[in-house]
Amino acid sequence: MTVSMYQASAPRFARMLRNLSAILAKAQAHVEAKKLDAAALTAYRLYPDMFPLTRQVQIACDQAKGAVARLAGLEPPKHEDAEQSFADLQARIARTLDFIGSVKAAQIDGSEAREIVLKLRSGELRLPGLDYLFSHAYPNFYFHVTTAYNILRHNGVELGKSDYIGTP
Amino acid sequence: MTVSMYQASAPRFARMLRNLSAILAKAQAHVEAKKLDAAALTAYRLYPDMFPLTRQVQIACDQAKGAVARLAGLEPPKHEDAEQSFADLQARIARTLDFIGSVKAAQIDGSEAREIVLKLRSGELRLPGLDYLFSHAYPNFYFHVTTAYNILRHNGVELGKSDYIGTP
Repeated sequence: MTVSMYQASAPRFARMLRNLSAILAKAQAHVEAKKLDAAALTAYRLYPDMFPLTRQVQIACDQAKGAVARLAGLEPPKHEDAEQSFADLQARIARTLDFIGSVKAAQIDGSEAREIVLKLRSGELRLPGLDYLFSHAYPNFYFHVTTAYNILRHNGVELGKSDYIGTP
Repeated sequence: MTVSMYQASAPRFARMLRNLSAILAKAQAHVEAKKLDAAALTAYRLYPDMFPLTRQVQIACDQAKGAVARLAGLEPPKHEDAEQSFADLQARIARTLDFIGSVKAAQIDGSEAREIVLKLRSGELRLPGLDYLFSHAYPNFYFHVTTAYNILRHNGVELGKSDYIGTP
């Protein structure tokens, strides 16, 4: 027995995006309960040249949909980066989950050696599906989900590790 | 073609631990150049009830060695949590990399359905190797590597995403 590329990708991204959605719902409830300006959280950056919460969520979504699309040999759908509110971010996650749910296991399976071409700011990067998933998409995706969580924790939103990990 | 459990685990953890080691080396160089107290970074927490940098690195190491050991059907080696300095943390990562390097692909391959038993604070968790790796070990591991990075970035250490991702 081995692992299929689908088992290793789409459902794992979807699960973490659902956890991120639940985390953002707790953050919004926190803002409402404390009568805070939501932008104090959505625009917050852990350092001036890091991305704010909105962008962390957008990139987490992009890494997930990009991985699922590219492994399936599809062009990743373009989602404009216009989100500002918590409701906007929830809608972005929902669209991403819809896309992930639309891709069938058979489209992704067998993509271990499929050449993936990434257009990065540093130039074009070509790598096999296996290395793209495990050494690019995964670390990037988790980076942005975790940084979104850290921004909220740093600002006093009551979250725990189980919100991030979810139920196995 | 499919993915082997070894391909999906040991080398991926090792790669990120090497990136974490390089990140910590940059943090130590920053402390020395600015003549700072190293503990201002190693003991820093993003929120009072979050773990400090030292513990983030310890847990990242534990998640990596725990995953590699459990998938291979071995008892994870115990590493005491006594690290305080950057040198201590580098030694902890080096010991973890040594252990990961000592486990052969054949020991991990075929562990997709192997029952993994985790003793968590919340009780015993039993799950197949596949779900343990992708829905427990990976998200936990990346959480702690990213949080270590975020603690350092938040405190002005000059790091970029390429330090985190490394060279594919």
